[in-house]
Amino acid sequence: MNFTIRPGTKADFKDIWRLLKDLAIHEKMLDEMIVTYEELERDAFSQEPWFESLLAEVPEENKEGFKIVGLAVYFYTYSTWKGRSVYLEDLYVMPEFRGFGIGKNLLSTLAKVVKEKHCVQLELSVLGQNNRSRAFYSGLGAQDITLRDGWHSLRFDAQSLKNVIL
Amino acid sequence: MNFTIRPGTKADFKDIWRLLKDLAIHEKMLDEMIVTYEELERDAFSQEPWFESLLAEVPEENKEGFKIVGLAVYFYTYSTWKGRSVYLEDLYVMPEFRGFGIGKNLLSTLAKVVKEKHCVQLELSVLGQNNRSRAFYSGLGAQDITLRDGWHSLRFDAQSLKNVIL
Repeated sequence: MNFTIRPGTKADFKDIWRLLKDLAIHEKMLDEMIVTYEELERDAFSQEPWFESLLAEVPEENKEGFKIVGLAVYFYTYSTWKGRSVYLEDLYVMPEFRGFGIGKNLLSTLAKVVKEKHCVQLELSVLGQNNRSRAFYSGLGAQDITLRDGWHSLRFDAQSLKNVIL
Repeated sequence: MNFTIRPGTKADFKDIWRLLKDLAIHEKMLDEMIVTYEELERDAFSQEPWFESLLAEVPEENKEGFKIVGLAVYFYTYSTWKGRSVYLEDLYVMPEFRGFGIGKNLLSTLAKVVKEKHCVQLELSVLGQNNRSRAFYSGLGAQDITLRDGWHSLRFDAQSLKNVIL
């Protein structure tokens, strides 16, 4: 399978949106996706983008007319213990294009970005029941720091934030 | 106890460094803190800062000569399901200044920043054994999404990233 990996541009946004929705459907979490098409496009391509993307493109359209078949969405974070970091928000390959190394290539390309930006680590989150993803990442050398060190992720949503304001 | 909350500036960096080291010692994790003073200062106050801070200042120096007695370190992230987000990397108040609402005020001030920047959520991580922190955040309305949804945090360090590059 031939494919290329390249950064996503504004012209790709329809495909980025389609793949992010596919991913949410795939995780049975579409109800959780409340951000709109317009908000996501604005935040992706504002002067200081809130996130960046890498896309996997195949030379021939598939039967539904798509050439963009996978994506990685990431942004820059910081660890006051380790230094500059990158967070992998999403990694997705359309089911019919799996098994050709596209996901691994997206991750490899992102690892090069991490290195070029002088970042020291790449973090991400997976659902505990998603054994396929967990095996994919741990097979490539990722540490599960929830299991190893006992880190828990906490979240204040918009409603609970209102209650925090004194 | 009188105190004020304000953004950290370059002139405060010695205090920011001191509090971050105190926090690492407090968590018995000082060995994990490999970022240097110079790196952290550069990343905090570069043209596009990697993180920002809020400081708690008291009017009178304590017996060791310090007026900055607490801090919050945060940066902007993104959820492709929810939208613009903030991550609270560190929240720390010197032990002798606890019990006066300084931590809660730092968090409240950060919640205002979250709102002003049109962000929809605030995320953070705590160690599972840190019952004091977990109770503090859950008492203010934070959800533990590791417990609730089964999210695990994964990390590629610099060495494992090298192995990912094809």
